[in-house]
Amino acid sequence: MSDLQQSLFLKTLRGEPVPRPPIWIMRQAGRYLPEYMKVRESISFNDLCRTPEAACEVTLQPIRRFGFDAAIMFSDILTPLAPMGAEFEFGNGGPKLSRPVRDEKDIRGLSTYPSREGVPFVAEAIGLMKKELGDRTPLIGFAGSPFTLATYLIEGGGSKNYEHLKTMLYSRPELLQELLDKLGEQILDYLRMQADAGVDAIQLFDTWGGILHPVDYARMVLPVVRRIMDGLKDTGVPRIYFLKGSAPYNHLLRDLDVECCGIDWTQDLSLAITQLPGKAVQGNLDPLCLFGSENEIRRRATEICRQGAAAPGHVFNLGHGILPMIPPENAEALVDAVHAAGRR
Amino acid sequence: MSDLQQSLFLKTLRGEPVPRPPIWIMRQAGRYLPEYMKVRESISFNDLCRTPEAACEVTLQPIRRFGFDAAIMFSDILTPLAPMGAEFEFGNGGPKLSRPVRDEKDIRGLSTYPSREGVPFVAEAIGLMKKELGDRTPLIGFAGSPFTLATYLIEGGGSKNYEHLKTMLYSRPELLQELLDKLGEQILDYLRMQADAGVDAIQLFDTWGGILHPVDYARMVLPVVRRIMDGLKDTGVPRIYFLKGSAPYNHLLRDLDVECCGIDWTQDLSLAITQLPGKAVQGNLDPLCLFGSENEIRRRATEICRQGAAAPGHVFNLGHGILPMIPPENAEALVDAVHAAGRR
Repeated sequence: MSDLQQSLFLKTLRGEPVPRPPIWIMRQAGRYLPEYMKVRESISFNDLCRTPEAACEVTLQPIRRFGFDAAIMFSDILTPLAPMGAEFEFGNGGPKLSRPVRDEKDIRGLSTYPSREGVPFVAEAIGLMKKELGDRTPLIGFAGSPFTLATYLIEGGGSKNYEHLKTMLYSRPELLQELLDKLGEQILDYLRMQADAGVDAIQLFDTWGGILHPVDYARMVLPVVRRIMDGLKDTGVPRIYFLKGSAPYNHLLRDLDVECCGIDWTQDLSLAITQLPGKAVQGNLDPLCLFGSENEIRRRATEICRQGAAAPGHVFNLGHGILPMIPPENAEALVDAVHAAGRR
Repeated sequence: MSDLQQSLFLKTLRGEPVPRPPIWIMRQAGRYLPEYMKVRESISFNDLCRTPEAACEVTLQPIRRFGFDAAIMFSDILTPLAPMGAEFEFGNGGPKLSRPVRDEKDIRGLSTYPSREGVPFVAEAIGLMKKELGDRTPLIGFAGSPFTLATYLIEGGGSKNYEHLKTMLYSRPELLQELLDKLGEQILDYLRMQADAGVDAIQLFDTWGGILHPVDYARMVLPVVRRIMDGLKDTGVPRIYFLKGSAPYNHLLRDLDVECCGIDWTQDLSLAITQLPGKAVQGNLDPLCLFGSENEIRRRATEICRQGAAAPGHVFNLGHGILPMIPPENAEALVDAVHAAGRR
């Protein structure tokens, strides 16, 4: 077995004993890092996602600075939508789609495509990142879940109430299903391409799954997630599913065939572990805790590691992405605290 | 016993059998009603909250139009903060406080006051409303919970990430506690004043309770809620606690002495009922469902009534406030569906 397979991160995802929990942080390559802001002075966010050398550089920055136990490829969840015919503009008010997807014609106008041809820069970036990371640090690939992507397509950007998506859900659910199925097919292909290109694990981000009644989540969202996760199984790449706001749905995830579930900060990690038997968990410090005192960051991190020890595996992470205004030294204190935490 | 005590709403809160669930809707007096918009042409939101005759008029509008089973006094959760020294401006970007509450000096600068003197227009409005509603429709009084009010005071308005509140929580929790305690004292006095003035039930709105880890919710928020609810017990007025995003905390609410808990739409009502034994429940249709087809509104409402029948009492409501863009005829369809639903 390669050195990489013996990494804390991959051992944890296999449920093997490790001396301490591995740690990485959602959005670890991002605006809270001065070195990232420096790169962004000369390249737009959108171009950064599409330029392998630059994406590789910012992917490595947090590994160099903090020695995180996993890298996550720098990209955006909306990147694979452009070749489908839905190109978002990235402005100050967040991503915007000039023509939102609202009816049959819009949905059928979206085309699926072979990911290696449609977004060739992703496999290329993964190749560069793997070469740089070598046998030391595993690389996580990722995608947005079909439901989360559908919210952006239907609303035409971010949203507060998801008015258009909900209108479709509550008046033409078959249309929403058609969109989710199409996105599911594309995202499975996109993640298989990433596995082929060499990522060591994948994470599916369902940032906005938690806005539905559990019945709708179970009926509309979960089957597509299951299809993607089942469709990745033969790649052998471990699969992480992060559903923000999962507390009301955890019982529905028991039978989902994934190695690990991400848990947000509004939940008791111990309780989530009992609700997800046999699975590793990832989480769950409030990202805002990194505005707190160093003592409090250490205390909370230690407690989460203690709770996580009851799971078959525990990957330390925040309960959502790190925020741009966080002082990097507070992230450093967090890494120290997790390094100091024993496990088993 | 008066006719009012025999109303569906008050019988339900006492756990007595009723032929169908009572229905009212959070924010039922509001911008989705053309008659409300008509009143607002000649009076600002802030003045409306402070003018008894106008507040009475808009409180009655949804009762006249839909025959709801309870009225809720028109006011704003921020109204009782002004005499404490925190007067919000109501502009297009939501409420704004010119000097947010961030340190000891700010917190100690807030003064508590006798509610009957500080906000005399509230008791006066309740008097007018009670006179108009007579023996037909009970009147609900309300307040924002100390925690939810604290988010507005500390952030200086609405917020996405609650950066300043979380910074205080994670670095100076004793300061946050001091603010919550002071607000708790004021809000208890404010609600006792409403009970004295004649409201038939009260609801405490904890719109932003669900942004915390359960340990912080249990330690910082729940004790103040408990003090308020216990402090209202001798008034005999039934108490409803609405905590949005309560799924991860329901187990913590079992011992809270209230007659009813509000449940948002992300939860299975049947599951919430088992987690809150002995309590009536209120909810829990997704407010966005009112953008859906009439058939779907009826189908979902009927299913919620079916699930609610397992509780000691079920008050039909949305899982959060009704939105301004909802067509009133869809609210009408919802009322029809609940009227048609049998119970027991």
